[in-house]
Amino acid sequence: MKKILAEILAIGDELLYGQTLDTNSHWISGEMDKIGINVIRRTTVGDVESEMLTAFSEAEQRADVILITGGLGPTSDDLTKPCLAKYFNCGLAINEEALAEVTEFFKRRGRELTERNRQQAALPTACIKITNPIGTAPGMWFDKGDKVFMSMPGVPHEMKRMIIEQVIPRLQKKYTLPVIHHKIIRTIGIGESFLAETITEWEQSLPPHFKLAYLPSLGEVKLRLTGMGDSLADLQREADALTDQVKPFIESFIYGYGDDPIERVIGRLLRDKKLTLSIAESCTGGYVSHLITTIPGSSDYFKGSMVAYSNEVKISRLGVKAETLERFGAVSEETVFEMANAVKLKFGSDIGIATSGIAGPDGGTPDKPVGTIWIAYADNDQTLTKKLQLTSDRLLNIRYTAAAVLNMIRQSIPN
Amino acid sequence: MKKILAEILAIGDELLYGQTLDTNSHWISGEMDKIGINVIRRTTVGDVESEMLTAFSEAEQRADVILITGGLGPTSDDLTKPCLAKYFNCGLAINEEALAEVTEFFKRRGRELTERNRQQAALPTACIKITNPIGTAPGMWFDKGDKVFMSMPGVPHEMKRMIIEQVIPRLQKKYTLPVIHHKIIRTIGIGESFLAETITEWEQSLPPHFKLAYLPSLGEVKLRLTGMGDSLADLQREADALTDQVKPFIESFIYGYGDDPIERVIGRLLRDKKLTLSIAESCTGGYVSHLITTIPGSSDYFKGSMVAYSNEVKISRLGVKAETLERFGAVSEETVFEMANAVKLKFGSDIGIATSGIAGPDGGTPDKPVGTIWIAYADNDQTLTKKLQLTSDRLLNIRYTAAAVLNMIRQSIPN
Repeated sequence: MKKILAEILAIGDELLYGQTLDTNSHWISGEMDKIGINVIRRTTVGDVESEMLTAFSEAEQRADVILITGGLGPTSDDLTKPCLAKYFNCGLAINEEALAEVTEFFKRRGRELTERNRQQAALPTACIKITNPIGTAPGMWFDKGDKVFMSMPGVPHEMKRMIIEQVIPRLQKKYTLPVIHHKIIRTIGIGESFLAETITEWEQSLPPHFKLAYLPSLGEVKLRLTGMGDSLADLQREADALTDQVKPFIESFIYGYGDDPIERVIGRLLRDKKLTLSIAESCTGGYVSHLITTIPGSSDYFKGSMVAYSNEVKISRLGVKAETLERFGAVSEETVFEMANAVKLKFGSDIGIATSGIAGPDGGTPDKPVGTIWIAYADNDQTLTKKLQLTSDRLLNIRYTAAAVLNMIRQSIPN
Repeated sequence: MKKILAEILAIGDELLYGQTLDTNSHWISGEMDKIGINVIRRTTVGDVESEMLTAFSEAEQRADVILITGGLGPTSDDLTKPCLAKYFNCGLAINEEALAEVTEFFKRRGRELTERNRQQAALPTACIKITNPIGTAPGMWFDKGDKVFMSMPGVPHEMKRMIIEQVIPRLQKKYTLPVIHHKIIRTIGIGESFLAETITEWEQSLPPHFKLAYLPSLGEVKLRLTGMGDSLADLQREADALTDQVKPFIESFIYGYGDDPIERVIGRLLRDKKLTLSIAESCTGGYVSHLITTIPGSSDYFKGSMVAYSNEVKISRLGVKAETLERFGAVSEETVFEMANAVKLKFGSDIGIATSGIAGPDGGTPDKPVGTIWIAYADNDQTLTKKLQLTSDRLLNIRYTAAAVLNMIRQSIPN
């Protein structure tokens, strides 16, 4: 089966100036991947005729499918339509169906159709119109032998709907596409290089129609196993079998599969076991609680937190002993031990968590340099503590600590 | 003065598969724009040698400055380094300084240096090393006559720090760049289109060497005034004068200038006035506290928070009356009024803040649909409350509410 290659082309000065973040190309990449089209390149150019024409012709040399977004607005800096007309050597003319659609669009909103809006229905005569059901700029589909160009507005929700409802069915009709299956294995608490070393043999033994990618993020590494073949059921079976093979080597680091972040996995664990959680945060300043509460329904298992930033609050509100703070300091095993147990008791939860550290960039001492952080976990049977030695970057330290805390909950939660 | 043109090249299969959103290219675009370098194209290719080599040579034909991110990890799918060595026709060899740095990096973390990690210090011999102060993969700088290639890790915080501290100074040394001055006016509490309407006349009267950009983000709009000329001092003077002209029209929405986010502006206000803050968070789940504590030194004015997620905690730990919760519900003016005053009292702070709402996506009622949120501000003289009617998107609601709360503090803080 011939591989179908795609290039995604985003058009707009605002993208090159760093004004607007292009999320369209990213989203289209994912959709193409799902239907077995290989995106081999993404390109962004400004609203400049020569740049656009060059980009069209380069893309045509490389790819079968060229997906263009942006530059279809009604203002003078929107040049995609005239450039496409030039590239396909045809004129622009009012498309009667498109005119009816844009007229209807304005009518529904009780607005008059201006000449500028009317021009949105002018399309290169070589194209097939792609209807825009929720906006005024229609899309365009140009067949060119085995290849195809299409152009969509840059407004994300308009573009997405057009891709899903019209572009993908057309692509699946035009091309014979392979079946692709991705399996994501989510790990935490092991660095990318250690992970890679641990599973080298397995990686090298993967069948040729499967490949592996490492996707690291703060404190985590996702393994993505991608298979290509003819049958989705077969690929899923194979991916599951390959996962079973690698599991014994990294089992303790795997916290889940697919799209679920660790805060959701922990939420599910807590809900299933009917356990509740509360948190005493010092250096993380509320960030762990924020992560926990990004999950809808977290009120089922999350009772609340105390962000005990000052020592005074640690003593008066949380009940940490003044003596402990004085003797060992706020950033100490003894303090987080007390904090975790205190918040558990005060909030009446099954599990209590605590963080205390020097997030930085200042405030370190020779004994406790910036990035020294203690975390603790307490339930009815045990209290666990752990020291982290992190960076001098405040935000990074907050995020790493949160990942470490969430991993600690995952590992320690009673059965 | 010759315009210096740049191309940004992002490398990684995970970008083309739609797995990872490339925010690096966007951020770099903005940084280049600030120093007067014109980004003319952005390109993304996969971890494929031939694709990378083609992209290098195409970029070299178009641009003076080629900025590459990604593909520098320690695993076998990371090919940027060998490709650059091939492109620059040189070998890879251990760079002793880089080796010392990566060794130190692991030592600080109490970890052993594996052979794989050691290989991170192997660099193309044609390059100048760019130190990575917070990671293991060094960057590279290749002079090629008037042109320059540089390669940085794809990890955003590592890349950013390297660009700001090392790449930009080097670029400014290598090229004569136009003098550019950006002045950022930060507004909150006014939408983009209302803001644009309010200042239309001023915008139209701007001198031709100044341009204006609207940069909207959650709850905020930043106005960026960009002047290009020969003298920084002149541009600064002009930008200040232009700001003084527009100020009277939007004064109450302006919270600051430059890079300071509102949480820093508020921190400064509190410190200057020697006031302290505490927060009772329900629907925001710790996010407001997180924002406040991202600012170094926030312990000077931030006492702490209570994330009172369950009603039980609102009553027992915070001291909200059970009767209030029963009669008016947790999401009500009466409840946030009590929460703000309770947290202020319990934490002994000058100002108390509260949030309570239905963040969604579920949990709404006909009376209180999803997105109904109450916020409150209390100090020794007054208690203020405000109702927000937001979206059905949980994370968006949390962030908008935090912006609204921070703006409420800014507007209400006693003199």
